[in-house]
Amino acid sequence: MPTYRIAPSILSADFARLGEEVRNVVRDGADMIHFDVMDNHYVPNLTIGPLVCEAIRPHVQVPIDVHLMVKPVDRIIPDFAKAGANIITFHPEGSEHIDRSLQLIRDHGCKAGLVFNPATSLDYLDYVMDKIDIILIMSVNPGFGGQSFIPEALKKIAEARRRIDESGRDIMLEVDGGIKIENIAAAAKAGADTFVAGSAIFGKPDYKAVIDDMRAQLAKA
Amino acid sequence: MPTYRIAPSILSADFARLGEEVRNVVRDGADMIHFDVMDNHYVPNLTIGPLVCEAIRPHVQVPIDVHLMVKPVDRIIPDFAKAGANIITFHPEGSEHIDRSLQLIRDHGCKAGLVFNPATSLDYLDYVMDKIDIILIMSVNPGFGGQSFIPEALKKIAEARRRIDESGRDIMLEVDGGIKIENIAAAAKAGADTFVAGSAIFGKPDYKAVIDDMRAQLAKA
Amino acid sequence: MPTYRIAPSILSADFARLGEEVRNVVRDGADMIHFDVMDNHYVPNLTIGPLVCEAIRPHVQVPIDVHLMVKPVDRIIPDFAKAGANIITFHPEGSEHIDRSLQLIRDHGCKAGLVFNPATSLDYLDYVMDKIDIILIMSVNPGFGGQSFIPEALKKIAEARRRIDESGRDIMLEVDGGIKIENIAAAAKAGADTFVAGSAIFGKPDYKAVIDDMRAQLAKA
Amino acid sequence: MPTYRIAPSILSADFARLGEEVRNVVRDGADMIHFDVMDNHYVPNLTIGPLVCEAIRPHVQVPIDVHLMVKPVDRIIPDFAKAGANIITFHPEGSEHIDRSLQLIRDHGCKAGLVFNPATSLDYLDYVMDKIDIILIMSVNPGFGGQSFIPEALKKIAEARRRIDESGRDIMLEVDGGIKIENIAAAAKAGADTFVAGSAIFGKPDYKAVIDDMRAQLAKA
Amino acid sequence: MPTYRIAPSILSADFARLGEEVRNVVRDGADMIHFDVMDNHYVPNLTIGPLVCEAIRPHVQVPIDVHLMVKPVDRIIPDFAKAGANIITFHPEGSEHIDRSLQLIRDHGCKAGLVFNPATSLDYLDYVMDKIDIILIMSVNPGFGGQSFIPEALKKIAEARRRIDESGRDIMLEVDGGIKIENIAAAAKAGADTFVAGSAIFGKPDYKAVIDDMRAQLAKA
Amino acid sequence: MPTYRIAPSILSADFARLGEEVRNVVRDGADMIHFDVMDNHYVPNLTIGPLVCEAIRPHVQVPIDVHLMVKPVDRIIPDFAKAGANIITFHPEGSEHIDRSLQLIRDHGCKAGLVFNPATSLDYLDYVMDKIDIILIMSVNPGFGGQSFIPEALKKIAEARRRIDESGRDIMLEVDGGIKIENIAAAAKAGADTFVAGSAIFGKPDYKAVIDDMRAQLAKA
Repeated sequence: MPTYRIAPSILSADFARLGEEVRNVVRDGADMIHFDVMDNHYVPNLTIGPLVCEAIRPHVQVPIDVHLMVKPVDRIIPDFAKAGANIITFHPEGSEHIDRSLQLIRDHGCKAGLVFNPATSLDYLDYVMDKIDIILIMSVNPGFGGQSFIPEALKKIAEARRRIDESGRDIMLEVDGGIKIENIAAAAKAGADTFVAGSAIFGKPDYKAVIDDMRAQLAKA
Repeated sequence: MPTYRIAPSILSADFARLGEEVRNVVRDGADMIHFDVMDNHYVPNLTIGPLVCEAIRPHVQVPIDVHLMVKPVDRIIPDFAKAGANIITFHPEGSEHIDRSLQLIRDHGCKAGLVFNPATSLDYLDYVMDKIDIILIMSVNPGFGGQSFIPEALKKIAEARRRIDESGRDIMLEVDGGIKIENIAAAAKAGADTFVAGSAIFGKPDYKAVIDDMRAQLAKA
Repeated sequence: MPTYRIAPSILSADFARLGEEVRNVVRDGADMIHFDVMDNHYVPNLTIGPLVCEAIRPHVQVPIDVHLMVKPVDRIIPDFAKAGANIITFHPEGSEHIDRSLQLIRDHGCKAGLVFNPATSLDYLDYVMDKIDIILIMSVNPGFGGQSFIPEALKKIAEARRRIDESGRDIMLEVDGGIKIENIAAAAKAGADTFVAGSAIFGKPDYKAVIDDMRAQLAKA
Repeated sequence: MPTYRIAPSILSADFARLGEEVRNVVRDGADMIHFDVMDNHYVPNLTIGPLVCEAIRPHVQVPIDVHLMVKPVDRIIPDFAKAGANIITFHPEGSEHIDRSLQLIRDHGCKAGLVFNPATSLDYLDYVMDKIDIILIMSVNPGFGGQSFIPEALKKIAEARRRIDESGRDIMLEVDGGIKIENIAAAAKAGADTFVAGSAIFGKPDYKAVIDDMRAQLAKA
Repeated sequence: MPTYRIAPSILSADFARLGEEVRNVVRDGADMIHFDVMDNHYVPNLTIGPLVCEAIRPHVQVPIDVHLMVKPVDRIIPDFAKAGANIITFHPEGSEHIDRSLQLIRDHGCKAGLVFNPATSLDYLDYVMDKIDIILIMSVNPGFGGQSFIPEALKKIAEARRRIDESGRDIMLEVDGGIKIENIAAAAKAGADTFVAGSAIFGKPDYKAVIDDMRAQLAKA
Repeated sequence: MPTYRIAPSILSADFARLGEEVRNVVRDGADMIHFDVMDNHYVPNLTIGPLVCEAIRPHVQVPIDVHLMVKPVDRIIPDFAKAGANIITFHPEGSEHIDRSLQLIRDHGCKAGLVFNPATSLDYLDYVMDKIDIILIMSVNPGFGGQSFIPEALKKIAEARRRIDESGRDIMLEVDGGIKIENIAAAAKAGADTFVAGSAIFGKPDYKAVIDDMRAQLAKA
């Protein structure tokens, strides 16, 4: 069985007590904290930036996994590295110089990755697999509310898995969007090993119960 | 003596426990909560958006005063109104259609205002005084850290005060940037009635002591 | 009495038979055809471009008065000149090089002018009165539907009139937005001499009746 | 024989009498009306927007097929749906969130599609074939005048046909640019079933003769 | 008599032997080297950047006066300071945060200034006179070739002179565009003390003769 | 043995005496002059534009090979053609209409090509091989200093070579970034035939020695 990771997205947490929220969810089994950054330009919403990352940093030891839904990306990368991020991913459409942005993330001591919108081709990976630590497949469109898991994403997860296996590299394969107890096994079977969940976890009173259920599903996968 | 208002900026609060921070600062005498929104485009930083506003809304009864350091502004205005903002201000350089944006804010039930960068002319007020509830004079450059109060701002505050008095309208005159116990009286004498303070309040252990000192200074002004 | 001009805006005409519409409205007394160009960038709407101007050109002898609600403006100016425009106006916010854009319009044989949004200062006129043939004062916000005449515009019309008179130059003073029989005299008293009307004319079955009524009001002004 | 559709582009019609033009061309055999929208940003020209679509809507029963040469696309999609469009296509380069834009079109009750510039890869189709009702292959560069059919487009039509057939879905395959009696059969043989023609139809006195000739060519294909 | 300065613009020099050109023109009496930077965005031309500044730096001791016709300006300011610039000016329309950009220039050890396009209001100076070392009045539109001196610029020079005198500060007043022997005295009488000349100097075989003639004209002014 | 070409990049030459530099390097064996254009938008640097190209044109007979690191590209293409460029290449991400931009270059009498950033897919070539005279593979990220040759580029060179051979067309295959005596043979073996070198040549006192060494390496490849 691969190492599976549950990464709750704090976008669904209570922003009035984020420190407590992240402490609780890690206590209840989360492996990472997923941190969604939107700039009201690349997506039509504005969420949270480096100052919030810095504020939650002392509350948890697990990796903070920053997903940049911003354009351009280069200027803000050092800010997040300084604020305590461990992983930084961005959309290939968000940078004119993808290779350089990946390198910039690593130069600041973070793991680097690309995020793929539902319609975005995996061909952006062709020449940068050696600079990638994580691939994030979106199973909804980022920045828009009230969406369900797009089934086509399973096909893309499988293709990304094949690329990773062929490369022989140690690359995480993360999926984000509409993940819940009912479909996490399917995503795992397709090849994902890291699972972002927002309201499925923070929307429930008992985080531990949800995370345990997810792990149970993964164990069966 | 005019009605003076102290508006602590939550940019300097602890983002890991915002609900508690705003409850405490209001308990300790704050009249409003100042909410700084940066989009990494109009200013080189990204802070917090509507979701954070919505999260702190239930914790306080005082007005939430949203300062948009974003460009463009129209799309996000309804989001903040829905998230519980009472006042929304924006930079005239941030909208192609200033009159329309002001009206849009009012149409959503909020008070509307313009923010003036240190070098920005007050002439943007010439034809919209009847659509303005608040004027915000920046005494530092927004979005950049570690700055001191720009003395030239006192001159602009005085000119804004004269415009307000001539209009005969009930318009708040707010100042933001480097305000602390030592200079709040000078800003009041120049004509300001609403004072944003960030680290001067949240950076100290006893919010009440600072706010009381500020009020004492204002009483003498 | 000054020379008054009625300029029906074809934005309110029937786009399925524009040739007939402009012929009829000119027959019924219109002095000019006002042509509103929106690009879905400077304003949130997209209307009609040079090809439509070219198509109506053979149907009327009166001037076609093109109002560019586009940004940037320079590339499309020659297209409209070639399409038969006689007057081209643009917003000062729409060009980085206002003096140059005005000159470009004249170099292509058209009259040139600036358009002022409700909140825009007339100070943009300070150094270009010698390159201006027309000043257009917006009495609504361009590109947004269902608005009424903004009374503050009368004050700006009066100020523009004073600038024109002081210059001693032959400059038209046009007003656009919510003009109808009930308020055209007030705009004329403030100093306007050219009046754009859209639905007030094209929204009525008898164009001649409306235009005659407008002229009667102007005669009383 | 597949169902072939002739879609005259009103860009070549007489804009002074569009209602009559579209009635005539439908009477003479057109299956759809092709509607070219340019915004002077994505392409260096500005044509016609939703108001014109709304104006011709009552004149014809056939589908109105709106080709958006604009960027970005999301804001204007609902406007065209409301104005009576039946099909809306856009360029993948024109949207940051292609999957979302396709869904937005369908949510407004229209058929959705992607348009491919001469150099644009068909890989944008990889993950969205289930959200596509039409594929439009450009055989000239959009927005530039005086161009001839680019032969390389035949190869792309054939590849798009293969993708459609493999998907087993009911997807129209449209071609636009330099289509005329002489080359329509070649485009059909390559796999196209819907043919945009502008000046080839509207530039001739007898629309019926041209359309009949095109159908005759298609019957032979 | 004020201190007059002649600042030849290397835009008219021979770019194949710039070192020699600047050495010669300084030997022949130039007080400064004017360095025009265009980015093909703020103006429709692209000229020379920091590497060229760095290359000519060792060849002359006089100040290098960099005029940024770029937008935005902040990122490139440190590059020019590092490349040896002594003066850096920019257009107020080129920065969202004018006060901050001026301060940034000074923080890097250079003199700072604003440039005014022919139609741009001097009101941008209202609150930043204490951060200004030089005011540059454009007497042509920057970035476009083949233009003559715009007479309206004399009026603006006079107004800038009045502002400088009222401030009591030591601020240079520079004029750029169409300056030659015939009109340099008029510009000096209006209040300018620093004169940019391009082809008037570099277009002649004997730089010294031109500069001497200019000084003779200035002495008479 | 294929025809190999050495193309020194004048970005590393002495900008104070460019004419002499290009004459010397051609005398010492250079086959082309590589000319790097950066606009401070597509890449974070600004270098040299058409005026500099025009200035060096009379000094050499060999082709001037202009690499546009600008966005957008169309407006400046005719300027470079007029300034004496023989080859013009651009990044596919820099043009909305790649096919059209390639054609525009050829219409102005120059050879046309596409440049591929380290992470950019070669699929942009799929439909334009008949309009391509040169393919430029970047082996560093353009516009950023101090980088080493990215080994992954060899794989892309090999793929580009295969595409060229399959097309049967006469297309140059150029590589740019970190090329020096030690790795030029590897690039040639992968399939490159044209080699850009900057500091490897201009950074050494004896250009001829370097170029001769490079040719010796190529002869062995």
